[in-house]
Amino acid sequence: MSMNVTQKLIQSHLLHGDMKPGEEIGIRIDQTLTQDATGTLVMLELEAMGLDRVKTEVSVQYVDHNIIQEDFKNPDDHLFLRSACQRFGVWYSRPGNGVSHPCHQENFGKPGKTLLGSDSHTPAAGAIGMLAIGAGGLEVALAMAGEPFFTRMPLIWGVKLTGSLPDWVSAKDVILEMLRRHGVDGGVGRIVEYYGPGLATLSAMDRHVIANMGAELGATSTVFPSDLEVRRFLRAWQREEDWVELAADADATYDVNEEIDLSSLVPLIAMPSSPGNVRPVSEVAGERIYQTYIGSSANPGYRDFAVSALMVQDRKVNDRVSFDINPTSRAQLETLVRDGHVAHLLHAGARLHQAGCNGCIGMGQAPATNEISLRTVPRNFPGRSGTREDKVCLVSPETATASALTGVITDPRTLGISYPRIADPDHPIINRAMFMPPLPLEEALHVDLVKGPNIASLPNFEPLPDEIEVRVLLKVADDVSTDEIMPPGLRVLPFRSNIPKIAEFSFDRLDPTYATRAKQLPGHVVVGGSNYGQGSSREHAALGPQYLGLRAVLAKGFARIHAQNLINFGVLPLTFVDPEDYDGIQTEDVLRLSNLRQVLTEGGELVVENVTRQYKFEMRHAMSPRQVRFLLRGGLISWMKERLSALPESSDT
Amino acid sequence: MSMNVTQKLIQSHLLHGDMKPGEEIGIRIDQTLTQDATGTLVMLELEAMGLDRVKTEVSVQYVDHNIIQEDFKNPDDHLFLRSACQRFGVWYSRPGNGVSHPCHQENFGKPGKTLLGSDSHTPAAGAIGMLAIGAGGLEVALAMAGEPFFTRMPLIWGVKLTGSLPDWVSAKDVILEMLRRHGVDGGVGRIVEYYGPGLATLSAMDRHVIANMGAELGATSTVFPSDLEVRRFLRAWQREEDWVELAADADATYDVNEEIDLSSLVPLIAMPSSPGNVRPVSEVAGERIYQTYIGSSANPGYRDFAVSALMVQDRKVNDRVSFDINPTSRAQLETLVRDGHVAHLLHAGARLHQAGCNGCIGMGQAPATNEISLRTVPRNFPGRSGTREDKVCLVSPETATASALTGVITDPRTLGISYPRIADPDHPIINRAMFMPPLPLEEALHVDLVKGPNIASLPNFEPLPDEIEVRVLLKVADDVSTDEIMPPGLRVLPFRSNIPKIAEFSFDRLDPTYATRAKQLPGHVVVGGSNYGQGSSREHAALGPQYLGLRAVLAKGFARIHAQNLINFGVLPLTFVDPEDYDGIQTEDVLRLSNLRQVLTEGGELVVENVTRQYKFEMRHAMSPRQVRFLLRGGLISWMKERLSALPESSDT
Repeated sequence: MSMNVTQKLIQSHLLHGDMKPGEEIGIRIDQTLTQDATGTLVMLELEAMGLDRVKTEVSVQYVDHNIIQEDFKNPDDHLFLRSACQRFGVWYSRPGNGVSHPCHQENFGKPGKTLLGSDSHTPAAGAIGMLAIGAGGLEVALAMAGEPFFTRMPLIWGVKLTGSLPDWVSAKDVILEMLRRHGVDGGVGRIVEYYGPGLATLSAMDRHVIANMGAELGATSTVFPSDLEVRRFLRAWQREEDWVELAADADATYDVNEEIDLSSLVPLIAMPSSPGNVRPVSEVAGERIYQTYIGSSANPGYRDFAVSALMVQDRKVNDRVSFDINPTSRAQLETLVRDGHVAHLLHAGARLHQAGCNGCIGMGQAPATNEISLRTVPRNFPGRSGTREDKVCLVSPETATASALTGVITDPRTLGISYPRIADPDHPIINRAMFMPPLPLEEALHVDLVKGPNIASLPNFEPLPDEIEVRVLLKVADDVSTDEIMPPGLRVLPFRSNIPKIAEFSFDRLDPTYATRAKQLPGHVVVGGSNYGQGSSREHAALGPQYLGLRAVLAKGFARIHAQNLINFGVLPLTFVDPEDYDGIQTEDVLRLSNLRQVLTEGGELVVENVTRQYKFEMRHAMSPRQVRFLLRGGLISWMKERLSALPESSDT
Repeated sequence: MSMNVTQKLIQSHLLHGDMKPGEEIGIRIDQTLTQDATGTLVMLELEAMGLDRVKTEVSVQYVDHNIIQEDFKNPDDHLFLRSACQRFGVWYSRPGNGVSHPCHQENFGKPGKTLLGSDSHTPAAGAIGMLAIGAGGLEVALAMAGEPFFTRMPLIWGVKLTGSLPDWVSAKDVILEMLRRHGVDGGVGRIVEYYGPGLATLSAMDRHVIANMGAELGATSTVFPSDLEVRRFLRAWQREEDWVELAADADATYDVNEEIDLSSLVPLIAMPSSPGNVRPVSEVAGERIYQTYIGSSANPGYRDFAVSALMVQDRKVNDRVSFDINPTSRAQLETLVRDGHVAHLLHAGARLHQAGCNGCIGMGQAPATNEISLRTVPRNFPGRSGTREDKVCLVSPETATASALTGVITDPRTLGISYPRIADPDHPIINRAMFMPPLPLEEALHVDLVKGPNIASLPNFEPLPDEIEVRVLLKVADDVSTDEIMPPGLRVLPFRSNIPKIAEFSFDRLDPTYATRAKQLPGHVVVGGSNYGQGSSREHAALGPQYLGLRAVLAKGFARIHAQNLINFGVLPLTFVDPEDYDGIQTEDVLRLSNLRQVLTEGGELVVENVTRQYKFEMRHAMSPRQVRFLLRGGLISWMKERLSALPESSDT
């Protein structure tokens, strides 16, 4: 059977299931990537599982998100992550070393391998022929412990590239064109695979731009072949030995087909406040801007900074524009300094920031009220910049820089200067000293985790008893979001590594007495309406209430990811057989759930007794047998802990 | 009469009083400097006064403190300051352009001139023969409006420098030696004047280090002569025409005398948590560090970064050390890039931050819990780094860098490498494009102030009525600090440009109902114990309660600066003639203060009637006739507003 690149990548890693779209498959994970915002919890999960050493080929922990240190919490996290890397055999990329995705591609990525990362832009590594997928922290922790990654086999969406990019049009405009055509959910349930003659004009870092922002299409991943350009890229990074060729078979087919003639593209802009709100720059030219922001994993390459530098060389940015330059890696920054580009940027008026994610995730560089910010970042969700009602537009470095020079949104083709075409450097400055390699096992086993006052080990996750008799502590309406279960933002986020503390904020927006009341009981349940747990996938929305004694949620329906998070952490998600039973239950009612193990294992409805009001009603669950096995043991961490203590070497589920 | 440099500077600017130590003098101010943390209020004060254009020779507004933009407030402040500079004829130094003090010395400072700045390190400009003094925002606003600056004639403390600095000892060690000898109050009421043959070995930027940290001695200012080195410095900055010679007369004398033999100095370190806690580095060598921080106005020179760069060239910093590099100006950064120093720093592991004050004032780069941070900054007050119980040590760039290489506190003389002696560059990269010059008057008059949602014009300050009958809203004990009157910290500070909003926090720690109750009354008084208003000099502690209707404070005694702030903003500070009268007054009592104008103007005790309890008692005041004149008009802003509308050109008081 002839195969495309995606199929070859999956086939070579397939441990469970068949490659039929929609079927659950389990694949072997070769590499993992964690960043600091999600990584602290991952490391606490590894500790709770009792893991001795990661079982992947390579696992790397980056520190790129929380690098503005306003108090002890971020630097304490860094030292904790450093110690956890030493303890578990993980590479540690020190703060200031750069953004995970370009750093990973430059230093660790390998064609033909799989990568699971606790960051939604992990698919960027598809640029060099990897199958790279973003996932929740616990899934990455399991992969680090040697477990397969389970997902549904996606449709494979072949995008044939023809022609070549005109002057002033670059990779960002390619992915913006995809977003213009298909919107922010056009890729859901799909892996995008690019191929065709147009590839020849896109460098490995150009492909990174496109693969990175495949996440904005909602795609599971984006894949490029591993061709001679990938070989050149790896050679430049002194890793040519890591290259293997990976191409679609001549007669390979795709589930969905698309074509882009690169020659026909124009500079595009995603207007506030969605990556899918794309228009030609020429249509909105002339609007006054406040800021031009260069950087992020969506435009991380040398050329993305160099093109900006050459555009501003011997010029000054408009005197009202904040021209923010965010190097994506130490290596890029050093190379840009060497080649004179940083000098041009500074002389033109740049504010040069340390290498990291920075303003892309709202860490500094927020725009002023009602002012337009032009950014090369991947996302412009409302308020993501830090300014609540912001006006962030997504553009290429060329459009961003042209607009910095004029002070208004500017189609770079109208600037009247010659286009600086820049080749990816064949001799970047390579400096891996800021990556700390894993310690030898013997040393690693003696490393203590360094926990500041805001870092706490995870609580134990007890097996589900066969019968629970608990009070209804809270009854909520339809569409309760994870923001309402565990608030986002600066008041709460700093406690991400401290479950006992962050648990205090559970349901804070709906009922500030919840945490206090929960702590007075041995356990409790919450009753919900439909679409319970919609919104952000944050695991703390399951962990916080679980810590306070939440044993089950009885709802009319669940948002998929939150239901999975509940199961993962040992909380039972149950759906009303008759939604009208929702109406009968009141806060403070005592419910008895009996014979749980048998019902969950063998199927059928669960009969719940309302002890307070003396009637019975039925609930059901939608868990797979695999999920039931986790849940009965108290969730994935307890399950994995048992496995690890029983089996020194990992096997499959 | 033969004079020293300080006397010449004062004499040439003296408008009021005699140069007798302790007597009030009024001096003409040639230049002002404001930074963004204090400048927004200064600009609102200029607006409230109705000023059309500043009357100084040069006024410069820097944006260097609040440049981490986590939401709209800081960038809104920047745009407000930009518009205010255009409106009032002030130079605007854009965010990212660098720290006020080195930028001012490089671009605006002139020997023989006076400089008043709303930043305590303003005396740094004494390095080039200026008389430079730090003051409250309102005092700087008055100077911008053409008023003299009033202070008490200080003692002049001559410090003779002999010898020359040994290898591995630099300017920071000179000022640390002064702090070792005299502590953090050794300079109170004094101006330090350095002279002698040792000066020849200190560059203008070395002198900046010493003058800057004169503030840590509590000195009013620090003064150096303007000699050939100052000429060289100004020539390098293409401003040789601004040079005038300024030297002490041959037989000049000083009120206090001191001598330092530079040859005898060793590397010094101020241990946590006071700049006065100084010891030889050798005595504390070997303690593990977390961080090395290079930068700030206390070590801002090219050589301070270059010496660090040459020390780490072809080496790596210890893998546990956060090596934070904070350029102090865009010009320095560009020059350091050009000369290869930035490349060395990055390759050794530096985290390179944008030019600004940054971690020196707790904006990022906070150290981890219980970890030592070695910094070249001027201050290590507890918690100033952002980490509450921090361990910050003050050292030279040499000691900081040596310790970064080893990972422990290290006397740089023990490193075993050769000492890189660096000359101040004669050809720095000069880039003044990021300084926006004042607009021509005709244009300036039409500029509207740009006010985001968090920036509000100051309220009106009404003249003091001749009789007030008001309720006692709050009675507090002895030693209430300005922190208790207006809390510091991130919850409150962001509202610094919004008096109606920040007023809500008045007395929050003592009585959270104060603001609500105050708003229900037309006016009120507060009764205090002794030492009322001790601590920080922040003006908001007067402005907030005043906005809520505070008309007078009746106390056993006042901290000097807060009493002055109350008067400045039109609130009457009265002292009990018999402290026991404090006991009789209760919260909610109504007091009647009659015949105020006559008593304040002509002297004598003020008879206050306790209307509620029907008895009378006496209060007195300690205001000068000048202060009484302000107060009767509703404070300095109202007074200045009247003056400006009556007299288009300023005259003296």
